[in-house]
Amino acid sequence: MTPQRVTLITLGVSDLDLARAFYAALGWVARDETPGASFYQMNGAVLGLFGRTALAADQGRPGAALGTGAMTLAQNFATTAEVDAAYLAALAAGATGLKAPESVFWGGYSGYYADPDGHVWELAMNPFWALADDGSLTLP
Amino acid sequence: MTPQRVTLITLGVSDLDLARAFYAALGWVARDETPGASFYQMNGAVLGLFGRTALAADQGRPGAALGTGAMTLAQNFATTAEVDAAYLAALAAGATGLKAPESVFWGGYSGYYADPDGHVWELAMNPFWALADDGSLTLP
Repeated sequence: MTPQRVTLITLGVSDLDLARAFYAALGWVARDETPGASFYQMNGAVLGLFGRTALAADQGRPGAALGTGAMTLAQNFATTAEVDAAYLAALAAGATGLKAPESVFWGGYSGYYADPDGHVWELAMNPFWALADDGSLTLP
Repeated sequence: MTPQRVTLITLGVSDLDLARAFYAALGWVARDETPGASFYQMNGAVLGLFGRTALAADQGRPGAALGTGAMTLAQNFATTAEVDAAYLAALAAGATGLKAPESVFWGGYSGYYADPDGHVWELAMNPFWALADDGSLTLP
């Protein structure tokens, strides 16, 4: 069983500077920026901007036309075991596995699946992002 | 300026019963179901399942291949004036208007725009859904 929550929404973007400028013009202020991503604190969850090419690779399908998967919903967990369990539960429920959970370049652990309509969910353990007791995420 | 939050994530689905069965198999429990939609309470925000054809029409582009817009992020507001102001602010920031805010069939008021990558945002006033002081949304 997966928790009924979203902790991170990732928007795959073709031009990160352009996307950052757009959200800045909307009044959004990033809490964290790296060369390849921007993260915005919301109400208990985070919005991320991430290159579309990098997002496709991270989903285990480099070069794919992502369609609805260019916007990805993530559930963060405290442990890799929880990520693995959620991935297996999703497959058992009929999800299409995109990438089995594995250690990833940014220091965490994540996998991806698609629901019956191709909507993409990421399951992740990020050792730098602690979850609150209610499962909500506030960036450090 | 728009608030830095998402209150509703809508997944456009081709077969609502199939999508409901998938999320039920994941362990999700709907707080509210209508003949055309299901809504799941999350941590301060709501996940909705809605027919993809109906979602395209609601976005003001019936019949469109929605691409990334098949998953839509919504910001709820307390008043129609706030919806109008957020829509104008988005256009001023460079958004592509999809549907200027208007009264809609379910009794609320909503508009849609796309960001530079085609990611779709809805701006809505739903008289049946009250927002908390922090902007989070808990279904009645």
